[in-house]
Amino acid sequence: MLRTVTLLGATGSIGRSTREVVAENPDRLRIAAVVAGRDAAALARIAVETGASFAALADEQAGPALAEALAGSGIACGAGRSAVLEAVSRESDIVVSAISGAAGLEATFAALTPGRVVALANKESLVCAGAAVMARAKAVGARILPLDSEHNALHQVLGAEPIEAIRSMTLTASGGPFRTWSAERIAAARPEQALAHPNYAMGAKITIDSASMMNKGLELIEACFLFGLAPAQLEVLVHPQQIVHGLVTFRDGSVSAGMALPDMRVAAAHCLGIDGRLDAPPARFLDLAMSAPLSFERPDLVRFPALGLAIAALAAGGAMPAILNAANEVAVAAFLEGRIGFAGIAGLVEAVCAGPGAGLSAAPDVAAALAIDHEARNRARELLSRAPFAVT
Amino acid sequence: MLRTVTLLGATGSIGRSTREVVAENPDRLRIAAVVAGRDAAALARIAVETGASFAALADEQAGPALAEALAGSGIACGAGRSAVLEAVSRESDIVVSAISGAAGLEATFAALTPGRVVALANKESLVCAGAAVMARAKAVGARILPLDSEHNALHQVLGAEPIEAIRSMTLTASGGPFRTWSAERIAAARPEQALAHPNYAMGAKITIDSASMMNKGLELIEACFLFGLAPAQLEVLVHPQQIVHGLVTFRDGSVSAGMALPDMRVAAAHCLGIDGRLDAPPARFLDLAMSAPLSFERPDLVRFPALGLAIAALAAGGAMPAILNAANEVAVAAFLEGRIGFAGIAGLVEAVCAGPGAGLSAAPDVAAALAIDHEARNRARELLSRAPFAVT
Repeated sequence: MLRTVTLLGATGSIGRSTREVVAENPDRLRIAAVVAGRDAAALARIAVETGASFAALADEQAGPALAEALAGSGIACGAGRSAVLEAVSRESDIVVSAISGAAGLEATFAALTPGRVVALANKESLVCAGAAVMARAKAVGARILPLDSEHNALHQVLGAEPIEAIRSMTLTASGGPFRTWSAERIAAARPEQALAHPNYAMGAKITIDSASMMNKGLELIEACFLFGLAPAQLEVLVHPQQIVHGLVTFRDGSVSAGMALPDMRVAAAHCLGIDGRLDAPPARFLDLAMSAPLSFERPDLVRFPALGLAIAALAAGGAMPAILNAANEVAVAAFLEGRIGFAGIAGLVEAVCAGPGAGLSAAPDVAAALAIDHEARNRARELLSRAPFAVT
Repeated sequence: MLRTVTLLGATGSIGRSTREVVAENPDRLRIAAVVAGRDAAALARIAVETGASFAALADEQAGPALAEALAGSGIACGAGRSAVLEAVSRESDIVVSAISGAAGLEATFAALTPGRVVALANKESLVCAGAAVMARAKAVGARILPLDSEHNALHQVLGAEPIEAIRSMTLTASGGPFRTWSAERIAAARPEQALAHPNYAMGAKITIDSASMMNKGLELIEACFLFGLAPAQLEVLVHPQQIVHGLVTFRDGSVSAGMALPDMRVAAAHCLGIDGRLDAPPARFLDLAMSAPLSFERPDLVRFPALGLAIAALAAGGAMPAILNAANEVAVAAFLEGRIGFAGIAGLVEAVCAGPGAGLSAAPDVAAALAIDHEARNRARELLSRAPFAVT
């Protein structure tokens, strides 16, 4: 059966992985609509290559360039919020939600329609509005499949086991480029050093988050909502080889581990194989006899304070994960612009989280989530403009 | 809900593990009947300790000693084939089938009754009569749960995935005491060297089989019947740390691995937790951060020819796995008695497998399986009495 895919975030790294898996399985998958942020030329090329019938850019001002690039192609297009929502409202079996940021949150909500599979990679959906997203999926009868390697691995090995069977879940982390660095050296790290991720080529924001381990903290928060666990049931292990992506420890001592080569196409293929597993090409299979030995270590919350802040935000609950996430986005942008040093990222996040957000309830819907996000960003920018977040 | 357990093989290592798990969960599990081979004193002690209401020994001659040991205890007992079958026919929710050899095969068949869980550790049931056992379980509505660490791990990570989703299954092997030895040194190994297993304290037969890697070959055969795979879909990896017990590789590149500390009580607890996972004590949980790095290597079929013979027997199909198993039992006994050298084990098995059994069909029932087994043993003993299987 031919299944159709709406691809939100078509120009990013997950978008590319998804397109490759779809292209490998032309008899089972077809891309119906593609959405990206602002790169009109790239999106137009992707729309033509994939045979999509609709293309949308989130950035309204890029609309004319997209229309021009697609003139005569027969592919309909649009730009701005309403065009993104139009793409989502068009019929498809699977929506791959890989737009980052607030735009991705709204589109994910809209994508949750009866019978649909939503392959979720937009972090904000679960970090800022996890309870609301999961409740809506359940209410409308949509199925959320996690597209991140870690959550996808956990989802697979959890299988049909009830949540009561679980003692704990462990997400693995590569440890990033600073895994073996001293605290002093990490504090003085330059953007180009933080951008050198050992295993994945991804966007700048998530690569910086990997270096600070905030990324793993945000993933812990996502896992908590996705699987319905208590915060204390979630753990992180640093695993530099990135072969094991997640582990479920059951109450009786059995442990199931989700493994794969560090290749986003494996998780994408799992999410897209809704009528049965897709066939991967031979090179995409793990050969443990050829792999380095698999090692695991506990994360160092002293050298990686961002992870500790995320764990604290998860434990605090309410709006705190959303506040942490917003503060981190502002902090990472400031770091990439050279306005603060690497240690200033966690410093700014900590300062924002210590602010007036404590006690705020979790967002019941998208509008509330966006309001919390907006407020926390403003607070982060305000602190940034007056506080001593040293540029080192 | 209190579940009752019939324990076949109560005095062995799996019997001990089962008893410990039952003792840890007195509100959920109770032992109803216990069966062993010939040790009357040990079985009587176990029957009293566990509160079983019936005890049976396979060895008819040990009957009087058992009756004497249990006199006044209120525990009914018997000895011989009919007593073993009486134990199995008594009502219970779970039958743990851990008697080795032919007696275990007949008892396993008898244990397959509607609605029952049969936790299977008797190798002969699947190696000698795999198709017949699986067909009978399906026909009567009994559920077979594998109790070996490797098969239990595979069963768990397979979950509800259909067989078509699987590309391959991998069983891990410790590599045994001769993992790093040269072929010459292995050929000259003495029984006490072969009995020094690095991870498990088990019976002599299975420990020798671990040293020759025949054990892993027999497990491959078991896995083939248990999961309904083609022989070529099964693989072995040597994994000295024995943390990963089995891996399922799916067609899309995802791999699910079953892990646990090398402790038989973990698999036993999984099989016994039929109404939901049992709680293990804290010491039984794996801590990967405290574990040695996990390494994997391909088995060396030159130094471990017994594994190659088992793979060939599985590929040949028909009665060949049963013939291999029977020949190996005779060969291991001869090695332990000092009649042949270590290399003679594989030598004798190879000679028996090259004999007249090729082309024989798989056993359709217990009687046929026992006849094939009997015939192959006779052939092995005959070859042993006249052929040059050097004692080194």
